[in-house]
Formats: sequence, C-alpha cells, structure tokens
Amino acid sequence: MRRNVFIGMKQNGRGLELTLGNFLRSAVSRNPEQKIYYQDKEIFTYAQFYRRVVNLANALVKLGLKKGDRVAVIDWDTNRYVECYYAIPIAGGAIHTVNIRYSPELIYYTISHAEDSFIVIRDEFVPLIEKNKELFSFIKGWIIYSESGKIGSSLEPKYNYDDLVKDEPSAKEKGKDVDIYDSAETSLPSTSEDDIATIFYTSGTTGLPKGVTFTHRNLVLHAVSLMSTLNEPPMSISSKDVVMPIVPLFHVHQWGFPHWVLSKGLPYVLPGRYNYALILKLIEKLHVTVTAMVPTILQLILMEPGSEGILRNSHLRIIIGGSALTEGLTKRAEALGLTVVGAYGMSETAPALTVSYISKEIEHLSPEEIKREITSAGFPVVLTQVKIVDSEMNDLPRDGKSIGEVVARAPWLTSGYWKMAEETEKLWRGGWLHTGDLGTMDRYGFLRIVDREKDVVKSGGEFVPTIILEDIISAVPGIMEVAVVGKPDQKWDEVPVAFYTSKEELKEDYLNREMDKFVETGRIAKFWKPVSFIRVDSFERTSTGKIDKKPLKERVRGGS
Amino acid sequence: MRRNVFIGMKQNGRGLELTLGNFLRSAVSRNPEQKIYYQDKEIFTYAQFYRRVVNLANALVKLGLKKGDRVAVIDWDTNRYVECYYAIPIAGGAIHTVNIRYSPELIYYTISHAEDSFIVIRDEFVPLIEKNKELFSFIKGWIIYSESGKIGSSLEPKYNYDDLVKDEPSAKEKGKDVDIYDSAETSLPSTSEDDIATIFYTSGTTGLPKGVTFTHRNLVLHAVSLMSTLNEPPMSISSKDVVMPIVPLFHVHQWGFPHWVLSKGLPYVLPGRYNYALILKLIEKLHVTVTAMVPTILQLILMEPGSEGILRNSHLRIIIGGSALTEGLTKRAEALGLTVVGAYGMSETAPALTVSYISKEIEHLSPEEIKREITSAGFPVVLTQVKIVDSEMNDLPRDGKSIGEVVARAPWLTSGYWKMAEETEKLWRGGWLHTGDLGTMDRYGFLRIVDREKDVVKSGGEFVPTIILEDIISAVPGIMEVAVVGKPDQKWDEVPVAFYTSKEELKEDYLNREMDKFVETGRIAKFWKPVSFIRVDSFERTSTGKIDKKPLKERVRGGS
Repeated sequence: MRRNVFIGMKQNGRGLELTLGNFLRSAVSRNPEQKIYYQDKEIFTYAQFYRRVVNLANALVKLGLKKGDRVAVIDWDTNRYVECYYAIPIAGGAIHTVNIRYSPELIYYTISHAEDSFIVIRDEFVPLIEKNKELFSFIKGWIIYSESGKIGSSLEPKYNYDDLVKDEPSAKEKGKDVDIYDSAETSLPSTSEDDIATIFYTSGTTGLPKGVTFTHRNLVLHAVSLMSTLNEPPMSISSKDVVMPIVPLFHVHQWGFPHWVLSKGLPYVLPGRYNYALILKLIEKLHVTVTAMVPTILQLILMEPGSEGILRNSHLRIIIGGSALTEGLTKRAEALGLTVVGAYGMSETAPALTVSYISKEIEHLSPEEIKREITSAGFPVVLTQVKIVDSEMNDLPRDGKSIGEVVARAPWLTSGYWKMAEETEKLWRGGWLHTGDLGTMDRYGFLRIVDREKDVVKSGGEFVPTIILEDIISAVPGIMEVAVVGKPDQKWDEVPVAFYTSKEELKEDYLNREMDKFVETGRIAKFWKPVSFIRVDSFERTSTGKIDKKPLKERVRGGS
Repeated sequence: MRRNVFIGMKQNGRGLELTLGNFLRSAVSRNPEQKIYYQDKEIFTYAQFYRRVVNLANALVKLGLKKGDRVAVIDWDTNRYVECYYAIPIAGGAIHTVNIRYSPELIYYTISHAEDSFIVIRDEFVPLIEKNKELFSFIKGWIIYSESGKIGSSLEPKYNYDDLVKDEPSAKEKGKDVDIYDSAETSLPSTSEDDIATIFYTSGTTGLPKGVTFTHRNLVLHAVSLMSTLNEPPMSISSKDVVMPIVPLFHVHQWGFPHWVLSKGLPYVLPGRYNYALILKLIEKLHVTVTAMVPTILQLILMEPGSEGILRNSHLRIIIGGSALTEGLTKRAEALGLTVVGAYGMSETAPALTVSYISKEIEHLSPEEIKREITSAGFPVVLTQVKIVDSEMNDLPRDGKSIGEVVARAPWLTSGYWKMAEETEKLWRGGWLHTGDLGTMDRYGFLRIVDREKDVVKSGGEFVPTIILEDIISAVPGIMEVAVVGKPDQKWDEVPVAFYTSKEELKEDYLNREMDKFVETGRIAKFWKPVSFIRVDSFERTSTGKIDKKPLKERVRGGS
C-alpha cells in the first residue's frame, strides 16, 4: 500500500489515524459551505477556514516550529483562536490555551513552565507582556493580531497573524469548489494520533497550576462520543442548530465545542470578548439555538437589560457546566422557556464525562423531578466508564444514596500533567482517574455530584452534601447565591454554615423556618440544616468563575 | 501507573483502548437493566448478557482458543449470535460470521480458508456439516446450540452452548447490582484495539469469495461515528427507540447494529430465522420503532397478509441498504406512514460510509425532492472522507452531475483481505479504498450512487446511470421490479435494455410513452431510454438478495 504524505494521515494497517488533520478534513469536506462567525463582523465558510488553517500551519513550520513545540494563544473567543486550535497541532505542535483570567504572574509562570516557542496574541494583551518582556527571551516569535490591521509593538521578532493566514489559491486550485484533499499535500510534518495536541493549566487547591495535556486522539474521540450523546432530548442537537458557546476557548477546550461543532457541520458563532448586550444581539440576529456556560454567566446574562424579551422567544438550549445549576437559577431560566441541561467533567477529562438527558428510565418521573435530574451530572458519555468508590477503591452500590468519590476511565482522559510525574501518579492511582468529586449513582447509571472532596462537610461521621444543600437553599425566596462550608464543632466535628447573597438582609428566623419545611418534606436531613446563615455582599471567585470557598472556610475557622 | 489486567483494557499513555471489551463494559455499565430479546421467547438484561459473554469468553479460552484464532458462527439472528459477537473477540479470537445463504461448497471453502478453530453452530445446521465431517478434521471443537436443550450429533468434540454461558455468580458478586468492573478481572488474555475481531466472506464478480477482516478499533469507531450520524432527522435515533434489524448477523456486522444499539442502550430485538408473520407480530408487540433491511425484504414484508394494518400504526423508521430503494417501493412504504432512509457502504467499509438525512441544505427542497434525496446514499458519516474520481484518480467536481468512482477513507475500513495481498493492494490503490461504485456528489457533499462499475452501460461515450434509471422506471404503474443492462450496439457501443417483473404483461407502447414523458420533463436523458423492455417471471439474486445482472447481460449479449 502506498504511503501518502497527507496532513496527519497515515494509511497503514490501522486505517485513518485519529488526528486533528483528518478530523478537520472530514468535517470540511462534508460541509464546505457551512459558516463560522466572528460576532457579526466576519464570516468564513468552512472551506475558507480550512484554507486559513493550512496556511497558518505552513507559516508556523516556516518560522521554525519544531515537532512537539508548544505555541501559546492569548485571545478572547474568536475565529482566529479556533484556527489556532487546528493549525498548531496540524503543524506538529501543541496549542497552549493561556488562561487570561490568571494574574500576570501566573500567566508568566504557565508560559515559562510550558516552554512555549511562539505566542499568538491579540494586540490588547501585548502591553501585559511588554511590561516584562525580558522574561520572555525564550520566545522565538510573536504572532500578533489586531482588528485595526496594525501591530505596533516592541516585541521581536513579530509577525502579523493576518499575513500568515492569507495567501492566493494556486492556479491548480482556482475554480475548484473544495480542495480539501489536494491542498493537504503540503510540506507539513506527519503527525500521529498519539502526539500531544493541547496543554492548558488548571489550579488545584494548593500549589502552582498544573499543565494538563491531551493528544489528537483524545480530542477526536471526545468530540465524536460527546456528539453521539448530545442528540438525546432535550438537547437533541441536529444539523438545524446554530451554536454559540459562552465558554472561554482557554477553558478546557471550550468543553469540546471547537471540535464537535465542526464535525457536526453547524454554524459556529464566536462572540469575542464577552459583552452581554452583544451576546444577546447575536442570539437574536443569528438565531442561535444552542449555547453553553457556567451558572454565573447565565446569571449575568439574565441580569442584562432587555434579556428577557430576547430570550423568551429564543427557544435556546443551554448546556451548563463548571458547577451545578441551582434550583433557583433553573426556575428563572425555565420561566423564559429556556432549556437547561447539566453536564459534568473536569480539566483532566477533556472535559466531558457525563451529560444529562431524558432517558426512558426517567421519563416517567414528574416534571419537577425531571427538571432536577436534567440539571444534574447525568449519564456517562458513550465509551466512558464511571463509578463511585470508597476510600479503599471498593465499588459502592448504585443505589442513588451511597456517597463516594467519582472515578473514571475513557479514551480521552489526560495521560498526565506536564513535567509532574508524581501528581500524575496520584491522579491515576488504582488505574482510575480520581476526580476529587463526591457523588451518588443510581441503578440506571445516573450520576449526581454532591460535593467536592476538598469542600466536604462531615457532621457526626456523615456527609453533608453541600452542592445538593446549596441547590435547595437557593430556591428559598430572597436568596441569590449560597455557599455552605463546615465550621469546626466539638461534638459533631463539623457543622454546616451557610453564606448567602441577597438584595436585602433576610431574617434568620425566616430562613430557619424554610429549612424546617425542607426537613419535614424529607428533602434535607435534619443534620444538614445550617447552624447559622451569614449574609455577604458578594463572593470571591476562582479563575473559572466558581465561588471560592477558601476565604469562607477561613472565616468560620477563625470564628470557632 | 499500575497496569491493570482488565478485559481488553490497557491503561497506558494512550488511555482506554478501543477494544470491544471496553466498549461493552461502558455500554452495560450505563444501562445494566436494558433488555435484549430473542423473539418474544427469551429476555436478557444487558447485565445478564454481559455475564454470559464473559462466561463464554472464559469457556473458549479453557477449551483451548489461542490469541488470533478464528471461530465460526452458523446461526440465524439470535441473542446467542450477538453474544458471540463480543465473547469471541474478548477471548482474543476473531468471529467468522458464516454466510448461511452460500452453497454448502462455498461454506466449506470459507471455513477452511479462514482456518477456523472452533465452530458455534445451531442444531438445524449440524446435518449440513455432518454430511462432510471428514473435511473438518482441523476443527478443535463444536459448540452446539439447540432450543430443545439436547445436542445429539456425531461431531466431536462437542459442547452445549448453554452450558458454557451459564454459571453462578460468585459469593463476592451476590447481591451486587452490577459487577461490570469486578467480573472483568479474569484470566482472559489482554487484547489490543488493533487485533482482528471479525472476518467474513464477500463475493466479487469473479473468483472465490474474499475474507474481509476488521479490528476491534474499526468496529468501535464505526459504531460511535454511525451513532452520531443517525441522530439526524428523519431517523432521529434517541434513547426512546426499540430496535429490530432485519439484516442477517452474518451480513457485514448486521450493518453495525450489534455495536451501536448496545452503546446507545436501546432494547434490541433479535428475530431469529426470518418469518415475516412473526416479524410483524414482534413489531406490534414490542413496539419496534427502528429497523433496517434491503429493499427485497421490505417488499416481502409488504406482501405479507395483514402487514398493512400493523405497519400503518407503527411509525416505523427503516434504514435501507444493500441496494438503492426504488421510487415505487418508497411510495408504497410512505403510503403506510413508514419513514425510509438510505445508507451506503459495502462489505469492505464495515459497512457505513454515508447516511441520508434532512440537512439544512436540503430542507428547502420540495417534499418530492426530499424523498428522493432521503433514499439516496446521503452524507458521509462523521470521520469519513469520501470523494468521486476519474479513472486517473483526479478529483471530479462536486456538481451533482459528474460521474466517477466513489473512493473513501475512514478509521474503520478493512485493512485487507485475509491471505490475499494482491487483492488488498488493488482495493487500496492510490491510498484510497475503491468501492467499484459510480456516483455523483453535490456541493453539500451529498452522494448519489448511479451505478456499479461492473454494471456500467456506456452509450456513445456517456454513462447511462442504471440505478437512477431503474429507480425512475420502477415508478411506472404496473412495474414491480426492473433491471437495466447494456446490449452491444455497433453505433453506440452499448444501448440500454430493461428487464422487468409485473403482474401482467405491459404493452411496449405504453412503456415507451411513459419513458417519453420522463424525457420531456428532463428526468432522463433521451439516450437513457431503453431500446426494449423484456418481461421476466422473476430475477435471479445474489447471496445478499440483490438482483443478479450477470444472466441478464448474457441474455442480451447472446441475442445481439
């Protein structure tokens, strides 16, 4: 069999390799005229997108990118960022998606830890780097993008992003509809599905951020498996959808959207820097039907003036991740006719492990119960193996009650942290990836996350599932957001304390009465009832927008 | 990282291997209580099915199955056959799905060519073997299944299938809901995703049947990709469906059903030996919503007394493959409210290459045009690359008109024929798999098959696309089935001749007038019009039920 030198293609006994090059070519050849939008300013067809990706990949190789090099990207959610998602791995490198919410110090740390060789950067972020440019002497080139077209900067050597992606079709290509297969025969290095394609940093509870890596194969399998799970109701993704995720591209592969959306052949809208007025306008103008976000963003969008009018007619379906959607927020979204669906995963899992859907097993439940299920973690995605175990790695019963750590296997989980062998070992102890989350699983395989191991409150030897408890408290009229932490206690070891935000101070009496109602109806156990409620103006947040419980824990500890 | 000895599981840098063991465990752990039906006689939950598969795999290893051995299965479409689909590859072997429609001579040939070591066989087929048992001295054991429970036979050594799958759960397992992960720790050999998992024989136009092989990886990727394509309307497969394919399990992996149905977690009905009255009863009783079949079977079902009443209320969605669905048959199915969808592939492609669906690109068409599209080959399945080329392997325009050979790449195409290196080389010439089919592709990537290369009629240097032409002729009132072949002609090289079946003889005049109408409305070119119409009582068929054009060609050649 002749061995062909196609992008990332190896025709061997194994068949087509699961590289991003093959993945993209298959997607584009099926839907060459489908469109990618940057806000409502720029539109590229998939075929044009592909051409730009190939040009950028070739340019990177010409600039000196070597097989295995890391290339950082610092940008908002743009079409150019998505081009880098493909071009860098196709050129043989790994894309380092820099967390722009990190402090400058942490950004420097991650870039130097990853030893990036090139940096693709939007002009707005250049001053951040210029301030300390002597720290970046190891960078071989700066690829700058500016909407103005001008890229004035003291960073050297520098290249204009738009010069690199642009070129003229060759004489041979002119007049052809699509040139997916021909143009692929380039001088690009051949890639293997086991090459590392992405790296990004994730913050643990302690210590410096860890670099999580994924291979081409990981990303392709994640995309295809996720796609075949997202077709279940109520998400029911089909070729008629228009997709605009409000999940940063630096955040765990934007939950897989840059891969599955192209493979599914859907219009893909990139909103740029988040501006909720613009986001609402794009939803209306481009008829967006599917989006994804963390609960905090949903709350911010709902607070935007005029949001109700636009969203009420949108029939938007929203995948919620990052943290659990509270009952209160679910109700507000559903009052507008929005569909919200829960999903679960983490940085190390690409991220999808489970997605909620209305299966035959749960469709007999009451609408109220279905709503609760549908915003939970959900069912394991195709090809995954998920279970809950005790601290000795014994399987726990799938009874919907037993609480244990969620452990997982799938063909797309990270094989390890960059230059941190010991942490990797710990992540994978016993042959399963340890999520550090506590959950229950029922007989149908439906997973609910009840707590983070690190946030656990144990009272009298029993778990107080703070995520479930917060969900329930959030539905109390007047409460906006809530976070429960454990306060040291002589008798019970720990007792739960609830911090909350609200427009006005709420009477402790009122809150206690509401809690008693939940105890009476059996929704919470008596010992889950917070011993006190503390109102705060706002919560501190982690770089991914979740409530940071560390300062709250310190506060109750200080007060004990 | 500790290396675990799980079934087909390798925890290495690549993550979970794409083996059938991992695939099945993921499926079963997500839906342990879902059911597999053998007719309406036997029901097993997925968890029970899994237990039986593991028992059978262990039994095979104990009987002496070695890594890489082939094990033949000779049975109708039963749950036990599906158990073998998993147990044999999980035990380290490859399942040889024997074509029971072959003549005894060809069955002997394929078993000896594959050098099978064991044969799993239903009692009904035992006499066929006993007649020539001296030919099978190389078989190490006969695993016989009988619905009566008795397995009297002169074949030796013989084992009762049901003894091998049965055993008691261990003390440790008792009282557990599912034991997917524990029970997996067995003494089974470890398998790799690149091990050969299946082999079956396919007949070409000339010569002996060729053995096509597929790896674990091929089958897993085929299933997941197919699943994520079948969710498009009008198939819209979801977790609420009940599936009963009427495609023999020996026929190209039953088009992937034994894999994707389990992974999707759906009720899976096996109809046993085809009995159309029983099939209709099962559709009604078990509320079957999705099926698959070749056009001939659909015709036979529609001819079954009482079929109309049952089918009219069934809302059944049918995947049609094997050969194109004619317009006439489509109309009859749709008059009953059935949904028919075309798909395309071949033995060497696992089989799925394309599936039809109503994409955004075609939804603006008229209902009539959509029907025509939806029964065509359709859009390439996720991860595939399909194009049409001329005889020098140049890409042809995607204009919906240019006719060329369909060539393909995907991660699940056969890597070769068993012990036929030269044929493999030919199949993969130029780095693409050659289907031997002629087709057109439009700008949206929609594929239509217009002919088999071997059945081509070329008149005046132009293709007469016989599949399209037959489709159109089939809609003429009175015509039942039709086959067009080329008759040698001095002036045009070849001219088309149509053979047809009908209840009564149709006047040539009438047929010519109908053809003229098609020419006038532009549906057929003038030179496609058959020079004569020949009525036959019935058509000879190939082993997969397609009309065999060979004798028809001989007939027109003899008469020229």
